[in-house]
Amino acid sequence: MTGRHLGRHRDRHLGLDVGGTKCLVVVVADDGSVITTARQPTPTGVDALVDTLCGLVAEAQTALDGERPETIGVGVPGLVGNGIIRTSPHLPGVIDFDVAGALEARLGRPVAVDNDATCAALAEWRVGAGRSLASPDAAGQVEGAAPGAVTDAVVVTLGTGIGAGMIAGGALQHGANGFAGEVGHMVIEANGVPCPCGRRGCWERYASGTALGRLATEAARAGRLPAAGSADVDAVRGEDLATWARSGDDAARAVFDEFAEWLGLGLANLTAIADPQLFVIGGGLSSAADLFLPATRDALARLQFGGERRPTPRIVAAQLGELAGGIGAALLGAQPR
Amino acid sequence: MTGRHLGRHRDRHLGLDVGGTKCLVVVVADDGSVITTARQPTPTGVDALVDTLCGLVAEAQTALDGERPETIGVGVPGLVGNGIIRTSPHLPGVIDFDVAGALEARLGRPVAVDNDATCAALAEWRVGAGRSLASPDAAGQVEGAAPGAVTDAVVVTLGTGIGAGMIAGGALQHGANGFAGEVGHMVIEANGVPCPCGRRGCWERYASGTALGRLATEAARAGRLPAAGSADVDAVRGEDLATWARSGDDAARAVFDEFAEWLGLGLANLTAIADPQLFVIGGGLSSAADLFLPATRDALARLQFGGERRPTPRIVAAQLGELAGGIGAALLGAQPR
Repeated sequence: MTGRHLGRHRDRHLGLDVGGTKCLVVVVADDGSVITTARQPTPTGVDALVDTLCGLVAEAQTALDGERPETIGVGVPGLVGNGIIRTSPHLPGVIDFDVAGALEARLGRPVAVDNDATCAALAEWRVGAGRSLASPDAAGQVEGAAPGAVTDAVVVTLGTGIGAGMIAGGALQHGANGFAGEVGHMVIEANGVPCPCGRRGCWERYASGTALGRLATEAARAGRLPAAGSADVDAVRGEDLATWARSGDDAARAVFDEFAEWLGLGLANLTAIADPQLFVIGGGLSSAADLFLPATRDALARLQFGGERRPTPRIVAAQLGELAGGIGAALLGAQPR
Repeated sequence: MTGRHLGRHRDRHLGLDVGGTKCLVVVVADDGSVITTARQPTPTGVDALVDTLCGLVAEAQTALDGERPETIGVGVPGLVGNGIIRTSPHLPGVIDFDVAGALEARLGRPVAVDNDATCAALAEWRVGAGRSLASPDAAGQVEGAAPGAVTDAVVVTLGTGIGAGMIAGGALQHGANGFAGEVGHMVIEANGVPCPCGRRGCWERYASGTALGRLATEAARAGRLPAAGSADVDAVRGEDLATWARSGDDAARAVFDEFAEWLGLGLANLTAIADPQLFVIGGGLSSAADLFLPATRDALARLQFGGERRPTPRIVAAQLGELAGGIGAALLGAQPR
């Protein structure tokens, strides 16, 4: 006896989003609208992780008065393919772990698993920023936007690193192994800043939340950020910088401009490679989007190959906030397999 | 009365490949096998170009005893979308030219147009290196190759610059405007070597045929290439370098190794972004593939994000040679529109 048969409920889809610090459960309806959410801290170790995720599923079912969602999807950070987490910088010790198999064994039902940024991309494309752009009145909502379905997009998540989900030719792309979209590890400066991945010059060393903190610290050390005052310049955070910039501090704004230049350079690379109509910028840093998106748009228009002979992809802030990964995981589970 | 009705001929598809120095016509059968080819020098100016292409169509039809091919496709260099050449570095003065419209007006039939590297990618994927890998006996032909359809691939053309065609999710990708695959203008060294495109550090400054010549010249100037002798070091060509390397010159081989490192770095970027199973290396430089592909494979395995926790994409030389673009243009025309 499902909601479908009763004609009372729409189908419900459950999504789990595993983050470095917290795990989120989201239940959505067929149209992506959110019905209930809950969260728990991310524990250490794979057994505790599976316990936490199963607990969140039970918590969501309780919130649904015991109704079982139709499908379950999970978004996890790092390299994931065929339900297996190969390596995850944000989940120490989780290597080659079959999270899909472990959850299916506990829950007794199929579980779809994908990269968290891929899930967020699916959500923003289908029910977030991508849907707004495609709607008939989009031209009034987004500067320069023409209505029309978005067929090619990159949903970029700016956080500790840079993740992305790729939409190409009207389809969410996973690559051959489910690893597509690791754009943060595109090298943009050979022999540049060392990256924890072991190489140098990865884009996420220049245009992630971590990178914004580094640029701020460098500016403070060089005496280019008076607002940092006599405080420990190594402790300047992106949040401080945003506060100063919003209060009209030109030096703080200059650091955001520098950040926007690096962000725009990477987006120009992705434009040359994938030719998208749309970039959606999400992740923790998107709360400061007003401070860097205008300059990023200028940088992309200036740096893109083909210059004025091609349209400049639109760059918009994500709309689904921290629920994007969970909503996308739920939509992932709802897709035909 | 077509060949199909007679049961005597298979369908025939005509492809035109416009290059910076020559134009090529290729007629293929449904299975991509080549029936006839012809070529003419590329003239200057759009009117002369259309004359040349129509002349090649007539020449091919004569070779087919007057039989009219079922479809016509054209591959052109540069940014092309909706049949219009927006800008083409290798066709001076050709800007915003509706080549599809001009040919359709002259030939009285539909003409499909796409970027030449995209056409070459379609050909290598469908009837060249991609088909070989997918064939049942592929494991014996290519080291490490497992049989199976290639769903994600990048066909990289190394010539004056670097072009590419992208296959993702089992489909040839064009991007939102038909401009996908301009991978040569992915910046890999911010503030690096100046590029004619107006920016700095584009990949094709480091890993194209032009770049190989530059690396050789730099080595000669620095006294690291004794074979260059007292000749004009600014005139060292890639062909010379290949000759010296094949004769066992370690200094010449070291330049190829340096080249392979840059090529591998860009392929690692594309691996992080698109996660392909396969890179196909074509273009003029592929005639020296034996001198740089082994080192490129090593570089990619070492530089790819995820290291040993992911499969390394296979890197193989293109199989269709200088006919790839023409064969692909013919296959393009034969695709449902």
